[in-house]
Amino acid sequence: MVDLSDVRAWRHHLHAHPETAFEEFETSRFVAEKLRSFGLEVTEGIGGTGVVGVKRGTGGGRTVSFRADMDALDIQEANRFAHASRIRGKMHACGHDGHTAMLLGAARHLAQRDLSGTIQFVFQPAEENEGGGKRMIEDGLFKRFPADAVFGMHTRPGLDIGSFALRSGPSMASFDVFEITIEGKGTHAARPHLGADPIVAAGQIISAVQSIVSRSVDPLDAAVVSITEMKGGASWNVIPDSAVLRGTTRALDQGVRDLIEARLRSVVSSICGGLGCVANIIYDRRYPVLVNTPEWTAACGEVVQRLVGTDRVKKEIPATMGAEDFAFMLQEVPGCYLWIGNGTMERDRILHNPNFDFNDDALPFGIDYWVALAEAVAK
Amino acid sequence: MVDLSDVRAWRHHLHAHPETAFEEFETSRFVAEKLRSFGLEVTEGIGGTGVVGVKRGTGGGRTVSFRADMDALDIQEANRFAHASRIRGKMHACGHDGHTAMLLGAARHLAQRDLSGTIQFVFQPAEENEGGGKRMIEDGLFKRFPADAVFGMHTRPGLDIGSFALRSGPSMASFDVFEITIEGKGTHAARPHLGADPIVAAGQIISAVQSIVSRSVDPLDAAVVSITEMKGGASWNVIPDSAVLRGTTRALDQGVRDLIEARLRSVVSSICGGLGCVANIIYDRRYPVLVNTPEWTAACGEVVQRLVGTDRVKKEIPATMGAEDFAFMLQEVPGCYLWIGNGTMERDRILHNPNFDFNDDALPFGIDYWVALAEAVAK
Amino acid sequence: MVDLSDVRAWRHHLHAHPETAFEEFETSRFVAEKLRSFGLEVTEGIGGTGVVGVKRGTGGGRTVSFRADMDALDIQEANRFAHASRIRGKMHACGHDGHTAMLLGAARHLAQRDLSGTIQFVFQPAEENEGGGKRMIEDGLFKRFPADAVFGMHTRPGLDIGSFALRSGPSMASFDVFEITIEGKGTHAARPHLGADPIVAAGQIISAVQSIVSRSVDPLDAAVVSITEMKGGASWNVIPDSAVLRGTTRALDQGVRDLIEARLRSVVSSICGGLGCVANIIYDRRYPVLVNTPEWTAACGEVVQRLVGTDRVKKEIPATMGAEDFAFMLQEVPGCYLWIGNGTMERDRILHNPNFDFNDDALPFGIDYWVALAEAVAK
Amino acid sequence: MVDLSDVRAWRHHLHAHPETAFEEFETSRFVAEKLRSFGLEVTEGIGGTGVVGVKRGTGGGRTVSFRADMDALDIQEANRFAHASRIRGKMHACGHDGHTAMLLGAARHLAQRDLSGTIQFVFQPAEENEGGGKRMIEDGLFKRFPADAVFGMHTRPGLDIGSFALRSGPSMASFDVFEITIEGKGTHAARPHLGADPIVAAGQIISAVQSIVSRSVDPLDAAVVSITEMKGGASWNVIPDSAVLRGTTRALDQGVRDLIEARLRSVVSSICGGLGCVANIIYDRRYPVLVNTPEWTAACGEVVQRLVGTDRVKKEIPATMGAEDFAFMLQEVPGCYLWIGNGTMERDRILHNPNFDFNDDALPFGIDYWVALAEAVAK
Repeated sequence: MVDLSDVRAWRHHLHAHPETAFEEFETSRFVAEKLRSFGLEVTEGIGGTGVVGVKRGTGGGRTVSFRADMDALDIQEANRFAHASRIRGKMHACGHDGHTAMLLGAARHLAQRDLSGTIQFVFQPAEENEGGGKRMIEDGLFKRFPADAVFGMHTRPGLDIGSFALRSGPSMASFDVFEITIEGKGTHAARPHLGADPIVAAGQIISAVQSIVSRSVDPLDAAVVSITEMKGGASWNVIPDSAVLRGTTRALDQGVRDLIEARLRSVVSSICGGLGCVANIIYDRRYPVLVNTPEWTAACGEVVQRLVGTDRVKKEIPATMGAEDFAFMLQEVPGCYLWIGNGTMERDRILHNPNFDFNDDALPFGIDYWVALAEAVAK
Repeated sequence: MVDLSDVRAWRHHLHAHPETAFEEFETSRFVAEKLRSFGLEVTEGIGGTGVVGVKRGTGGGRTVSFRADMDALDIQEANRFAHASRIRGKMHACGHDGHTAMLLGAARHLAQRDLSGTIQFVFQPAEENEGGGKRMIEDGLFKRFPADAVFGMHTRPGLDIGSFALRSGPSMASFDVFEITIEGKGTHAARPHLGADPIVAAGQIISAVQSIVSRSVDPLDAAVVSITEMKGGASWNVIPDSAVLRGTTRALDQGVRDLIEARLRSVVSSICGGLGCVANIIYDRRYPVLVNTPEWTAACGEVVQRLVGTDRVKKEIPATMGAEDFAFMLQEVPGCYLWIGNGTMERDRILHNPNFDFNDDALPFGIDYWVALAEAVAK
Repeated sequence: MVDLSDVRAWRHHLHAHPETAFEEFETSRFVAEKLRSFGLEVTEGIGGTGVVGVKRGTGGGRTVSFRADMDALDIQEANRFAHASRIRGKMHACGHDGHTAMLLGAARHLAQRDLSGTIQFVFQPAEENEGGGKRMIEDGLFKRFPADAVFGMHTRPGLDIGSFALRSGPSMASFDVFEITIEGKGTHAARPHLGADPIVAAGQIISAVQSIVSRSVDPLDAAVVSITEMKGGASWNVIPDSAVLRGTTRALDQGVRDLIEARLRSVVSSICGGLGCVANIIYDRRYPVLVNTPEWTAACGEVVQRLVGTDRVKKEIPATMGAEDFAFMLQEVPGCYLWIGNGTMERDRILHNPNFDFNDDALPFGIDYWVALAEAVAK
Repeated sequence: MVDLSDVRAWRHHLHAHPETAFEEFETSRFVAEKLRSFGLEVTEGIGGTGVVGVKRGTGGGRTVSFRADMDALDIQEANRFAHASRIRGKMHACGHDGHTAMLLGAARHLAQRDLSGTIQFVFQPAEENEGGGKRMIEDGLFKRFPADAVFGMHTRPGLDIGSFALRSGPSMASFDVFEITIEGKGTHAARPHLGADPIVAAGQIISAVQSIVSRSVDPLDAAVVSITEMKGGASWNVIPDSAVLRGTTRALDQGVRDLIEARLRSVVSSICGGLGCVANIIYDRRYPVLVNTPEWTAACGEVVQRLVGTDRVKKEIPATMGAEDFAFMLQEVPGCYLWIGNGTMERDRILHNPNFDFNDDALPFGIDYWVALAEAVAK
């Protein structure tokens, strides 16, 4: 039904030419050119390098948006195959090359079809921790291209080729980062009483912060507070003026997310104060909880069940503490984000690994999903 | 020179009839009666059961006070000798029976002597943590019996019979007690998020309090902050509403003592606040640092060197973290507090032990010291 | 269909005469007598005061067990109504009077019915933390009364009268208790260096234990480690020889439960060792995770939906961190445990509250459930 | 008596040409040349750049060593005077230029005198934390130049010009450094249960280490354990494999020093083990406690009292937690290390400050001390 050899070639081209957050210049040009060649209306430069292609409906149907992400990662590829990255230190290690190729394949097919509804193909920059989706929204994505529903898809190593997985409600975690600067007072290491030791304060904080998850959060709610960096001092002989702790938090519920921030601020400030130090806390909210709309999740579940059979669809899989900026789109418009199988994980073939490659065998299933979804929801 | 058989008999009588803080009724009656029998002016009932006997000088000399303590301890004596305690659960396990007997012996002798100066024999109640000396001062001791100098003496196991030890300046520690009530919010143990866990706050406080000594106090200053009691909760299933920590602090410097209190209040309040609890802190100042006046310490040192020879006098012994309420008297009047040997410590013959007994062989040395000191400073 | 006035009277009688763990003598006699009066075969004294009544089937059907719990709590009832507890300090504050009455009501009805299958009515003692269900199993319950499936039910304040709630898989938490004795070495509070401070070790342990939930357990798994009691020391002046921490743990997965125990032992032992103390850890496994069998849960869901309509059945409610000894029965035999509405919670009308009372309006729904379930699974 | 203009010129020359640890090539050449010009026997290259000049006695007297240190610091001088450092980033901010000049001045004078005893003028490299004194000893200093006693002197800002200060017994602290590498297991920050968090272990260690000083060391002993550096992690999203803590310890007693090392190893290893990490501890013993011999301290005290009068000599000043590698020499040979006044400290005129300068007014007092000491002990 779909000419896969072209789609595979596009995927290999994209893989060989990875571009990272907000610098997807060649990628977005490639995408826009293809969309135009299919006869779609194309708008470029939304939220930086974002692209939208529109296939107008014949009237009466819904307007829906299908989204793919285009950015690569700052990882040096270890693969040696022909389509390996040609850009030093960058690679498509998260399958966005496959996501983009599949959505292009579906767009080419749907461009030829008569549908009562309208399909908007959204290609976003900077999904990897930089919030390209948010940037597109801030740049008017849903004002310029209003939608009744929005859909996303991500490759999933460990899930068989030809299988899909999804979950209703909160499905991926919120993702925030924090930086705590503990301002103490430096002094010679032999005369601690003349200063205020920021490293001792850091030690107390690291311990006390554990109680946020262990005591303040409902045991039935998922939450993570990880301190991932600690830095302070540069000599054997000097207690430093300050020390820094950095980290991240995750939650599957907005109330829990708020609670974590409030508790973190309180615990850190108080302990610092008690030890003669001052805390400077930066808490930066990155991605919200990704919440799939129950009705659209049910609809997507039916689409994939029809496509591959009940046995190859995992419904109500557990949520994950990973984060995804499609969460911003689902805050604005109802919809569903699901996973498509990339085959059994072999050693090192996990996401963000220098040996990763999107599995071309998944391409037809992804394209078929988009096409079937269009027929189901935009007819 | 002195009739020791009487003094020994007095000591045994006192040992057999121990009385504790502010209940030294028979003891003070015994002391007052003896002092009167020596022909001294006697005043009773100062600061409760305190007694003062005065030997007037012939004129021109200084007025000095010699002090002994009279109270026993709430300890069940384990000794079986004839003069063992006849009062269940009470005993003279700190040698105050010997202190009182020696000062009585000296009073009897000095009553017969012509001295230009005046000697005031002060017998105080409740030295053991209850501040009987302070009570006497508050009851006007030094207003009613002004003194140019004040002197005290304590038995010391581990120091040879016939030996003395002393130190100029800060010699015994301040002694304060505290009680921290951590008010949290109780909840079922399976639902910690509905409460505020006072036990987790207690844990953080116990750790953070260690940094007062390790970081806030000058390493060259001696300090102790000991949490000696923790109490909270009464079931496997319920996080309690509150928890209590109790303890004591010691310092050899008033500034360090102030620093400890300030830091303790700050650390405890802040950590409680950060963990959603409220701290109720009672900090009770008990005994100040005992500071021997350099000049009088030098004078006492010369007196004991003349008495027993240079080899049997330890000058500038290290201070001790123990406390003594004679410190209150030295805050009001200059003077010196020293130690008299009670013989080598055998197993269990240490102070506050059920097997302790004041060593009668020390009696003549103690009496001689008081007599020689009177001659030296009140002539 | 069912004569409710009798059942209500039984419930009130049981409420007025509460008996606690393994002392349900009058209660079990009452139950046995009723079962006999219905014409059932009755066995008493299983696992202490447990009772089983058997309604034989006509042949060909399954054999299933329905279970109710009979014990009351050590709580002084605050209610003033006519059926309030007549036993000082004891009351039915967890609705077991209602559970027993409903199962008796169902037994009376089913005794008159022809069913191909056999129904075993199991009345157990000591559900409240004492493991009466476990005792019955150890006493041969399932050997003497083998069953194809086992079912339980519990009242649920906050759920409307006439509503039911249930969940497949892990539904209630495991419940374990622990006692940690930290053996240090006592010393005078002013001389900490001569001992090994068990209170400082306790403080470190309390903090470190928080990391079990915050770091060692998968954020997507529910877990609780609560230290609910701390005890140590009895004086301002003495660092004690030892201190004790007690608490409980909860998990919704057996692997997590094992992990918690292993981590607790490791953290506690290591910290004690590092601080010169020795830890003596008693970890007592009480109740396992209650796991509803998916097939039987689906069957029960259909039964209650037919009974009260889809809108009044909550399926896949969240699990709870509370524990229930029916979990032991579900370890032996497949089945399902569900909740029946006790009406909206008013102020203080929650379980284990002195103002609680089982709501008589729920009686017919409970009886109907047991009857309909019998018809569905034992026909 | 002594020609100060030359000595002042030497001091200025040395100040203008600072050289740091073991690179004192020009400085030692300058010293050796001067010593030869005075007619002394000179040996170079002992322990790197160390120099010894010998003035032979006429017989019958003691052989004593006088020591000065020659090294500068890696500090950019802020002074603008004519003799300011000409070497970028290096300066004499600890007065070793003055020490060297004074000892040269004394050597010139004593070279002309008849003394029965022998004086060995020892000029050592690398006093600043690098142990140049230790290196000279390892290179045979006291085997090649045996001595009955050894003496050192250091400038002291805050002490008046023409004053001296000294102390018998332990006077300066031992100085050790440690590095703790906590080997955990890295993982994604959202999945802490898959790793072993070295930062949480670091937090617990920082807190627990405070208890070494607060609990394990006698409150009457001085001790410092300072963690001065913490490093771990390099990203918001990744819990690192390992973390590092560095720091230093100080003690005024060898037993306390041993205790600190043993407790540090125990606390760190145990806590790491309990949290699933492994500790790699490097504990590097740098300088021992500097212990002045009582007899030689008394002799030096008499020398300086004769020189400047009793009022300008501070005896029994408190010890300091600073360290000094002359401690190695005093481990081998009895002797005394004392301080010479550098005048009242003004703002920023403290040691190791970019504005420091040795005060030339102190030169004659230092020279006179060496000469008088030689006459007193080597006659």
